[in-house]
Amino acid sequence: MAYFDSASSAPLHPVAHEALRAALDDGWADPARLYREGRRARLLLDAAREAAAEAVGCRPDELFFTPSGTYAVHSGMAGSLAGRRRVGAHVVVSAVEHSSVLHAAHSRVGEGDGPAVTEVPVDRTGAVSPQTYAAALRPDTALACLQSANHEVGTVQPVGAVAEACRAAGVPLLVDAAQSLGWGPVDGAWSLLTASAHKWGGPAGVGLLAVRKGVRFAPQGPVDERESGRVPGFGNLPAIVAAAASLRAVRSEAEREAARLRVLVDRIRARVPELVPDVEVVGDPVRRLPHLVTFSCLYVDGETLLHELDRAEFSVSSGSSCTSSTLTPSHVLRAMGVLSEGNVRISLPSGTEEAEVERFLEVLPGVVAGVRARLGVPAAAREGGATAPDAAASLVVDALGKLCPIPVIELAKVIGDVPVGGTVTVLSDDEAARLDIPAWCEMRGHEYGGRNGTAFLVRRLA
Amino acid sequence: MAYFDSASSAPLHPVAHEALRAALDDGWADPARLYREGRRARLLLDAAREAAAEAVGCRPDELFFTPSGTYAVHSGMAGSLAGRRRVGAHVVVSAVEHSSVLHAAHSRVGEGDGPAVTEVPVDRTGAVSPQTYAAALRPDTALACLQSANHEVGTVQPVGAVAEACRAAGVPLLVDAAQSLGWGPVDGAWSLLTASAHKWGGPAGVGLLAVRKGVRFAPQGPVDERESGRVPGFGNLPAIVAAAASLRAVRSEAEREAARLRVLVDRIRARVPELVPDVEVVGDPVRRLPHLVTFSCLYVDGETLLHELDRAEFSVSSGSSCTSSTLTPSHVLRAMGVLSEGNVRISLPSGTEEAEVERFLEVLPGVVAGVRARLGVPAAAREGGATAPDAAASLVVDALGKLCPIPVIELAKVIGDVPVGGTVTVLSDDEAARLDIPAWCEMRGHEYGGRNGTAFLVRRLA
Repeated sequence: MAYFDSASSAPLHPVAHEALRAALDDGWADPARLYREGRRARLLLDAAREAAAEAVGCRPDELFFTPSGTYAVHSGMAGSLAGRRRVGAHVVVSAVEHSSVLHAAHSRVGEGDGPAVTEVPVDRTGAVSPQTYAAALRPDTALACLQSANHEVGTVQPVGAVAEACRAAGVPLLVDAAQSLGWGPVDGAWSLLTASAHKWGGPAGVGLLAVRKGVRFAPQGPVDERESGRVPGFGNLPAIVAAAASLRAVRSEAEREAARLRVLVDRIRARVPELVPDVEVVGDPVRRLPHLVTFSCLYVDGETLLHELDRAEFSVSSGSSCTSSTLTPSHVLRAMGVLSEGNVRISLPSGTEEAEVERFLEVLPGVVAGVRARLGVPAAAREGGATAPDAAASLVVDALGKLCPIPVIELAKVIGDVPVGGTVTVLSDDEAARLDIPAWCEMRGHEYGGRNGTAFLVRRLA
Repeated sequence: MAYFDSASSAPLHPVAHEALRAALDDGWADPARLYREGRRARLLLDAAREAAAEAVGCRPDELFFTPSGTYAVHSGMAGSLAGRRRVGAHVVVSAVEHSSVLHAAHSRVGEGDGPAVTEVPVDRTGAVSPQTYAAALRPDTALACLQSANHEVGTVQPVGAVAEACRAAGVPLLVDAAQSLGWGPVDGAWSLLTASAHKWGGPAGVGLLAVRKGVRFAPQGPVDERESGRVPGFGNLPAIVAAAASLRAVRSEAEREAARLRVLVDRIRARVPELVPDVEVVGDPVRRLPHLVTFSCLYVDGETLLHELDRAEFSVSSGSSCTSSTLTPSHVLRAMGVLSEGNVRISLPSGTEEAEVERFLEVLPGVVAGVRARLGVPAAAREGGATAPDAAASLVVDALGKLCPIPVIELAKVIGDVPVGGTVTVLSDDEAARLDIPAWCEMRGHEYGGRNGTAFLVRRLA
């Protein structure tokens, strides 16, 4: 088996395993108690907090342990927004934040005088522009949020420059560092930072919330005396100890491991388009996480692709609509305006061997070809080809009720049937078509003429 | 070492240890993913949910895993209150609920049209009366909460009768079963139930929230697709697996172990007042948790007592004011109207040996006597004694600025200096005095004449 989905959850690091085992024996008691089991637990908790704070780059009394990264995001945003209530209720986020950030931002809209949300757009690589981000800050902006690096395409965000803009505007910046904290600290003058241990090989059940001194913060909901009144409930101490120990361990290996995985990912980025026709590799090729790469395959349905890769013993994830419960493509791919069909995200865990990546590159072309063949995608259709002399100048393809990737396949099948300059109108009520028909036009060199309800207009240019 | 504080947190059960170890290898992946590591995690999660639901006595789709018992209480109360917003915002709780319930109830007061809270009083054993509880239900009551058993004194609450009253009034009842779920299911027609794994020997980081089908429930705060939209964030699957496995294990041992510990606790209840003068054993002697007993020692300061017992290798907790960060006595003891000074809670973990209890009974009298001697409590003062013929009919004792147990000790020292029928006025600004001076009067057979500001009036009767 090759598990290539560490961005979703990483297997437990051996150091985490060892620390957890030890802390289960020594750290099960309540660290607030005065007897020796409690004092022992308190020592473990204090040491874990110091280690985690050092890795984050903050003071121990600025760092709080939460039950998950999502909890850290939700409580960090809620506390920060409440602390700045007098300033206003406007929130700025990038359009490609993790769903926990977007949920927290949007869940408040409409709640009394809850905040309006500005989603800063990204370019085709998935990055925000610091200028665009700065322009979104308003006098009533209570909080700005920006991920350190994107979880679906690996693009690193310009956090330092955005932090400067936020500082100039007097707006606190919350950085979701879930994908990058194992690789290194987040530079720049952030105000709040969140992370999740199971992303770096720590155990599930531990998130981090750092709140810089001086940042206005009013914890929301009922609290108790735990975590300085920031996070109520009995803490998960053995897991916290393991999280801190493994963060320290992965950091000590980070430079070497990042260089090694970066080479493997570069190889995937270069080879996949050579080996598989009609593939778009997305995300920034340089300013990116070392271990993560995403590509999309035209005329392929993501769920089947994942299933076939799983049969071939590769575990990967996908942002295709067919792999989501809502049948909508990933909001990240949508914000980037890139193809979503046949989408594959590969995130290599630490220790991934070169041979596993080579085997993936051997297996992938056959798997994609197999899926395409079963969907009835003729090679010729994908090429356009010569047009019959008596071809109609416009055609209509009815793909209503058909899901991704069928509307795009039907379009590709007939584009050669209209002359250059002619048009194909695709009727589709599939959510993914809104993203994938324009992306297909971009990839194939045709003109996308826009959408009118369920009708997508495409003009053949080549 | 003898750890006698399982009501605070129990050491990990061997079955939990074993299950956790296995699940760390098999259950680290995201159970929402389609590849085999994800499917394996999903199977583990489903099996854990079924096992926990069976132990709780509900359907698997009525049971949700949370990051702690406190989280289960907070989110269960918030969701239930929001779901019944149209009915009203009034909450009924007992006065001796766990602080998480009281915090959640009171934290909403004043928030817009937030709920008023009725705290149902308890008798001297710590139990609510079903009639009194029923009388507190109003047409605008959105939620009623009652613990299955008290965490500080072990008294079992009449949940079945209260549940009937709630059902008759159409009010959902949330039962906090944190202290009792390891011993058995909660009888009665409850609507919501909460519990915490580390109380039964499961790992920290796992709470349970059961919400019966048909109960109106609107999850609060941002949600995601986890736990049917009830609990956002990546779940702590290995700990969940361990929690469910250990719940099943402790249940299979519960009947035998309860009978065994009940005998040991009965011995403590009977022997401590014989061995130590001026002790009040509190809580219901019969309708109680099998493993928990609490007593208070006159003229003793709880913090020193805990410290001395720790030196003697016994780990216990206390509801005395001096052991709390706020220097107020336990709200449970206060609601019961019983003595809070020198308070000791003993909660025996499963497997506690008879010899450990015997050693405790050997050690305790000397420890208490030592603390009393250091506080300068003369044995004669504790007895009252004959009065001089020329004694003043009233005395004033100035204990302002003195903390528990000094005001009561000063009172005891001079009560023999006034004749029977005479009065002592104690000046005290200590929070604990409000509870402990009346409790002392009750124990010593004197008349408590009430309080006027910082002046407490006591009339000698014996």
